[in-house]
Amino acid sequence: MSMYYESKRRSVVKTISWRFFATLDTTLIVFILTGELLLAVSVSGIEIVTKLMLYFFHERSWNKINFGRRTIQPFVLWFTGLSGAGKSTLAELATDYLKKKGLQVQQLDGDKIREIFPNTGFSRIERDRHVRRVGYLASMLEHNNVIVVAALISPYEETRQQVRELCRNFVEVYVDTPLEVCEDRDPKKLYQRARAGEIQHFTGIDDPYEPPPQPEVRVRTEGMSVDQSFEEIRRTIDKLLTV
Amino acid sequence: MSMYYESKRRSVVKTISWRFFATLDTTLIVFILTGELLLAVSVSGIEIVTKLMLYFFHERSWNKINFGRRTIQPFVLWFTGLSGAGKSTLAELATDYLKKKGLQVQQLDGDKIREIFPNTGFSRIERDRHVRRVGYLASMLEHNNVIVVAALISPYEETRQQVRELCRNFVEVYVDTPLEVCEDRDPKKLYQRARAGEIQHFTGIDDPYEPPPQPEVRVRTEGMSVDQSFEEIRRTIDKLLTV
Repeated sequence: MSMYYESKRRSVVKTISWRFFATLDTTLIVFILTGELLLAVSVSGIEIVTKLMLYFFHERSWNKINFGRRTIQPFVLWFTGLSGAGKSTLAELATDYLKKKGLQVQQLDGDKIREIFPNTGFSRIERDRHVRRVGYLASMLEHNNVIVVAALISPYEETRQQVRELCRNFVEVYVDTPLEVCEDRDPKKLYQRARAGEIQHFTGIDDPYEPPPQPEVRVRTEGMSVDQSFEEIRRTIDKLLTV
Repeated sequence: MSMYYESKRRSVVKTISWRFFATLDTTLIVFILTGELLLAVSVSGIEIVTKLMLYFFHERSWNKINFGRRTIQPFVLWFTGLSGAGKSTLAELATDYLKKKGLQVQQLDGDKIREIFPNTGFSRIERDRHVRRVGYLASMLEHNNVIVVAALISPYEETRQQVRELCRNFVEVYVDTPLEVCEDRDPKKLYQRARAGEIQHFTGIDDPYEPPPQPEVRVRTEGMSVDQSFEEIRRTIDKLLTV
């Protein structure tokens, strides 16, 4: 992607070009209807001056009219929940939904960022640092007008609060899927390995998950289609975009 | 900051509003000059149709003209050099210079990011991770159309190469100030403390600095004013913006 600009000189030259053809149009109309060249030229002369003034005042007046104006504050949509709860799937849908509206969006996936920094562990301290780093990244993007959709287990309430404070507009989406359901789905066979003792500090098994007491959105996925689960998230996004 | 949008309805209504006043202007000019209402109304009628077509073809033609068009690829301006070399001062100037042009810029300062994550050490491994994390943050911003100005000692060539690969448009600025000069300046009294053995792993004292073999820009600061040092950076930025 890139930033596209039109220089001031282009705007000036284009404006002159338009005024030239527009006035030529007027001159021709008057000349064809009356056959009087002097009248046609007089009309054009007055038109150039009056249209320039009129355009200026028209622009100034419209500056005072708020009809059709929208200001969108960027935000951080933060999906939290157990492994296998459906965070990444819903985050993917949210990202697509926002991209289709032509907005600048960045999806952050906890697992993918771990792949880039493979030495991040799963102890409380290491988890904390990981979540705070992703939170810092999210806030930095948000401060630069990028909407962020982040999906991380982020099991500790205290750490999520810290991330909330880093961001300007933090929207917590709690993907509330019961442990049994997550363990049943087990898309990456991680619960199996955690139960077998192959993985330590696994959230829900031998590490706690602290549910958010007051999430902005609480989504259930058990016995629901993906579209049904996404519905409330979509409504929340629409609200964020219309404010 | 926020994203500002104008809806399509606003543009449609504003266009109609302009055509109404513009045509009223033409009608009045013709009527005042000739006193003939029928002629004035005829001119207006023809004008509405012809101006709409003319405007459309004028826009389509200008779409084919490249005069005054600029496409800016975002980039990462990465300042590397010893502590006290002048990285932050020059990075600050570069950031201001870019902001004045109305561009979206984020300054990243290695020391400030360390303050947010106070547990980052100065061993080779810890330095490496720190530089790569900031590099990842920089690349993520760059991918979202934000220009990044980063100032980090980043002493190891290998790590800088890794960051270069993460970014699309990596511009390395080597602030080449001799160790003696940096130690003499010692703005934060860090060299003093490193010599006294109070700080370990201090770049230039008991930790190496590997100068970049082929930096995009090499800046000297010894015996030069800040403005003189900034001159080549300014030229490089201008080049990046005109491509």
